[in-house]
Amino acid sequence: MKVRVVTNILEANDRIAAENRKLFAEAGVYVMNIMSAPGAGKTSLIECTIKELNDKLKIGVIEGDIAGTDDAQRIESLGIPVVQINTGGACHLDANMINEVVADLPLKDLDFLIIENVGNLVCPAEFKVGEDMKVMLLSIAEGDDKPLKYPLMFQESSALILNKIDLLPYTNANIEKIKKDSFSLNPRLKIFEVSCKTGEGIVDWARWLQSLAA
Amino acid sequence: MKVRVVTNILEANDRIAAENRKLFAEAGVYVMNIMSAPGAGKTSLIECTIKELNDKLKIGVIEGDIAGTDDAQRIESLGIPVVQINTGGACHLDANMINEVVADLPLKDLDFLIIENVGNLVCPAEFKVGEDMKVMLLSIAEGDDKPLKYPLMFQESSALILNKIDLLPYTNANIEKIKKDSFSLNPRLKIFEVSCKTGEGIVDWARWLQSLAA
Repeated sequence: MKVRVVTNILEANDRIAAENRKLFAEAGVYVMNIMSAPGAGKTSLIECTIKELNDKLKIGVIEGDIAGTDDAQRIESLGIPVVQINTGGACHLDANMINEVVADLPLKDLDFLIIENVGNLVCPAEFKVGEDMKVMLLSIAEGDDKPLKYPLMFQESSALILNKIDLLPYTNANIEKIKKDSFSLNPRLKIFEVSCKTGEGIVDWARWLQSLAA
Repeated sequence: MKVRVVTNILEANDRIAAENRKLFAEAGVYVMNIMSAPGAGKTSLIECTIKELNDKLKIGVIEGDIAGTDDAQRIESLGIPVVQINTGGACHLDANMINEVVADLPLKDLDFLIIENVGNLVCPAEFKVGEDMKVMLLSIAEGDDKPLKYPLMFQESSALILNKIDLLPYTNANIEKIKKDSFSLNPRLKIFEVSCKTGEGIVDWARWLQSLAA
């Protein structure tokens, strides 16, 4: 029964996602939907990315969280237009939530819109929000078994950002296994190794984004 | 509309959870439902706990994952009765899934049943499965902002296990903030600091479980 419910929700969602996508295209904004487990470092990555690209692209952010405004405050302190969505109980952003808040952003002035999804490795992969691409973050501290356990997330993403690479010496994670299993699920996946703490790998990641948003 | 759907699902779920709970009580099994984000170390904690309690309690395990049997294989290699549930798309275990697999376990021979939920900080907190208590794991590497972002999980749990405490020197996480915010959401929360890698804190945690299951 539950599967049928999800299917109905997904069909309605996809129609609204297509509307959002048209709106973004007309405004000339490239849209990235960032997904990860809780605590993998999505907001930190957005902060690093903004610092790297702020003089090259006009960036806006939509923050998705169950509750709280911590993340939006962090982005706002960088002088970036930001909207916080609180989903209440919902474990993912959907197209309707995005549709309801886009008017709060100066869409026509932006080149690049970053949407930070709710921390969750399952449902965010199932719901389109009108993005040009999905990317996912995986913290090295989460271990090397995630691709085979959460396959849809890896299949739906254009890029995989391996974050907290500075913790690699202190964990048992095998980074080659992560890459091999990820490529087996999605041979076209672009993989970046970064540390938002040390700055390692951020320039390459930002350069790639700039080429897409240009 | 989506909220209404979830409500219907939750009502049906609670009825089946009550049936499961009766079944467990009749068999004399204490049931713990473990929840966390992906990669916080649920399976590692279960392994540590089994090694500590194996000569004191008869333990069984139900493993919940979107896909794969890695976790069940790890538990089986310890000589423990285990069932793997693959949820397909569902981001949490529900009471019906548990109801369908209990017959595969030697329930009457067990003292303690550990249910490992799907890695997710949202929906597992909303779905009862017939457990005596929920507990949650938080990896230190996930940062100190999780209690206020995923409040329901902290409110529904009887215990919070702070795992990967060995990584504390290499992160920016403020463990006192985690404790303070967790207690503000749930003053009766029992908090344990452990490392499944070094073994730190496991004896205290296991002793507490033993007192509950006895």
